[in-house]
Amino acid sequence: MAFNIQEILSDNAKSMRRSAIRDLLSIANRPEIISFAGGFPNPATFPVEDLKVIMQEVLEVESTSALQYGPTEGNPKLREILAQRYREQGLDITKDNVLITTSSQQAIDLTTKIFINPGDTIVCGLPSYLGALQAFWSYRAQPVGVKKDEELDAVLSALVQSGRKPKFIYAIPDFQNPSGVTMNIEQRKMMLEVAEKWDMLILEDSPYREIRFEGEDQPLLYSMNNERVMLLGTLSKTVLPGFRIGWIIAPTPIIDRLVVAKQSMDLCTPVFDQAVTARYFEKGLFEKNLEKTIELYRHKRDHMLSCFERYMPKGVSWTRPEGGLFLFVTLPKELDATELFHKALKEDVAFVIGEAFHCDGSGKNTLRINFSYMDDGPIEEGVKRLAKAIEQML
Amino acid sequence: MAFNIQEILSDNAKSMRRSAIRDLLSIANRPEIISFAGGFPNPATFPVEDLKVIMQEVLEVESTSALQYGPTEGNPKLREILAQRYREQGLDITKDNVLITTSSQQAIDLTTKIFINPGDTIVCGLPSYLGALQAFWSYRAQPVGVKKDEELDAVLSALVQSGRKPKFIYAIPDFQNPSGVTMNIEQRKMMLEVAEKWDMLILEDSPYREIRFEGEDQPLLYSMNNERVMLLGTLSKTVLPGFRIGWIIAPTPIIDRLVVAKQSMDLCTPVFDQAVTARYFEKGLFEKNLEKTIELYRHKRDHMLSCFERYMPKGVSWTRPEGGLFLFVTLPKELDATELFHKALKEDVAFVIGEAFHCDGSGKNTLRINFSYMDDGPIEEGVKRLAKAIEQML
Repeated sequence: MAFNIQEILSDNAKSMRRSAIRDLLSIANRPEIISFAGGFPNPATFPVEDLKVIMQEVLEVESTSALQYGPTEGNPKLREILAQRYREQGLDITKDNVLITTSSQQAIDLTTKIFINPGDTIVCGLPSYLGALQAFWSYRAQPVGVKKDEELDAVLSALVQSGRKPKFIYAIPDFQNPSGVTMNIEQRKMMLEVAEKWDMLILEDSPYREIRFEGEDQPLLYSMNNERVMLLGTLSKTVLPGFRIGWIIAPTPIIDRLVVAKQSMDLCTPVFDQAVTARYFEKGLFEKNLEKTIELYRHKRDHMLSCFERYMPKGVSWTRPEGGLFLFVTLPKELDATELFHKALKEDVAFVIGEAFHCDGSGKNTLRINFSYMDDGPIEEGVKRLAKAIEQML
Repeated sequence: MAFNIQEILSDNAKSMRRSAIRDLLSIANRPEIISFAGGFPNPATFPVEDLKVIMQEVLEVESTSALQYGPTEGNPKLREILAQRYREQGLDITKDNVLITTSSQQAIDLTTKIFINPGDTIVCGLPSYLGALQAFWSYRAQPVGVKKDEELDAVLSALVQSGRKPKFIYAIPDFQNPSGVTMNIEQRKMMLEVAEKWDMLILEDSPYREIRFEGEDQPLLYSMNNERVMLLGTLSKTVLPGFRIGWIIAPTPIIDRLVVAKQSMDLCTPVFDQAVTARYFEKGLFEKNLEKTIELYRHKRDHMLSCFERYMPKGVSWTRPEGGLFLFVTLPKELDATELFHKALKEDVAFVIGEAFHCDGSGKNTLRINFSYMDDGPIEEGVKRLAKAIEQML
């Protein structure tokens, strides 16, 4: 008799949502498809030759520790390097505030696990990173979307008054995924003031910050308040995603809880990959490679924008991000991006439907376009095809 | 004003238990301590020279994919290799039954997450692997210990009748951690019959199976029933723990749910490490290295046993495991292993208190001794010191 697993699934499992991005990616996997879907960095930015040297060094010099189990908190050298880098950005921290995680996605999961009871609310952007929403849903949190930073105080006030005070605010202040928007200093101050007023934590997700094409760096929220902010970082967009190395910076009482939660989740983050990463930073290779990456992505953004200007029909608008990996596109109100997705697939071009990033189901006329991954020729051809698919709907 | 995180912790976080092993390891980290505590493989078994070659190959030939994001399910080649290896052990599976996880610890966490609601019961051994207990507790499961396999049916019957039917049975059939005991064929048949009778899943954790010093392989539970068993494996004990590569074999409806849960946990398992692992298997290096590992650990077990025979005072008994990494030691009933732990630390020798493996708080006069990690000289010296500490209590 076949076992019926439906009957014994946890309530958490029942509330998990399959990733729309993931399903789209698997459809968009056909070689003939030009995909603007994933958030993939460009393989041309992977520092392959440097890694060849460093990996041999690690195996030569420190294989005994680098292939063994490691501390749950992470490689001590890497934690110190990251602490130093963030101190240079004004954070008042030591390595004890740094926990290495198996991708920053794991840090989102861990944070949700230690704070969320089913039904608890989390405030996030409208739109907001889908992977975070998925982690929130997987513990049956209720994400509450805020359209504009200016509405944050009113939303929190209403939630607190109805007994649904959020556990934390989830924000991506730099080159927000998917909108591409960066919070200015006034918006950052306001968010911190509101968090203070309502006695609340902020989860500051910062995967794209280093990839800035133009304009001035804005201060990290954590640098403006080191008691209420948990800051996430990752190697995935600036160096490579294949190591799954991320980190969370937080006050030590929170780090302590996260460490205990991480013990039963995977004991420690891949130790070899951490040793390689520590050496990569130590040798000053990060900055060198980042410069080339920024240059490449700036070019790709400009190329994508010029293709959009050339080919997009009237009524379609899009962002002009100062950094990051994505354009966010708004169709005329009456057009549905899911319908467009299927039409576009017939033209062999793919993107992510914006609705997937909206926890309230809005954003039906929006889509996210990645410009970091495809080559220049396919970018132009893909935009042409996308424009053609949109024109069929106008 | 400092933020008070206690007030907003989730109920899950409050029920998490800090790892006794971990805290002991950090105490036992002083260089002068001879530690029989952790479950560390011996670094002499790490295939460093082979890895040097393979890593260069991966970077040379497949860096574009090996440093990129990968599928949540895992590297397709590695999944096929593992499926083939298990088919040779009688499992009726394809690669669709294989999910690569970031350590088998993650597979335990994922399984718990998709099946457990707070208060749900899980049946496990008395004693049982502490990391599994921690994962269970972290979702507020109630592990129920079974002392002897023969009592399993009665325990399940009582749980079902009181409306507390377990979600699954957690078992380590080969060289159980920490007891070292291996289930014989009759016990395996009985466990499957009981699972069938009560319509229940089994989580078969199998990290040590390949490390057998003597005696005959017993069939995997999964090979005897491919509808009710989820099988866990890992690279950590046979090759190296530093990659954090594990896997779960399960019926596809369960794999589908685990994949969705894994998406929001870390998106995918480290991609580079998987590519290296796939090549390592492909080149037939696994068997060659395993043979040497078994030889080394057999020698270490024999050496540890002969030291125990030579130095241990009367009244102390211990297991003679046919494989794995551990001896399990029973002190005279009136002695307390926690007290011994502190006395032993003064003699600069460490172990894990057996009570940590008992979900019901029993086993106070037991301890776990690892024999894979220390060199021969320190093993003898450590056993002498341990014997001295025990004699102080007699």
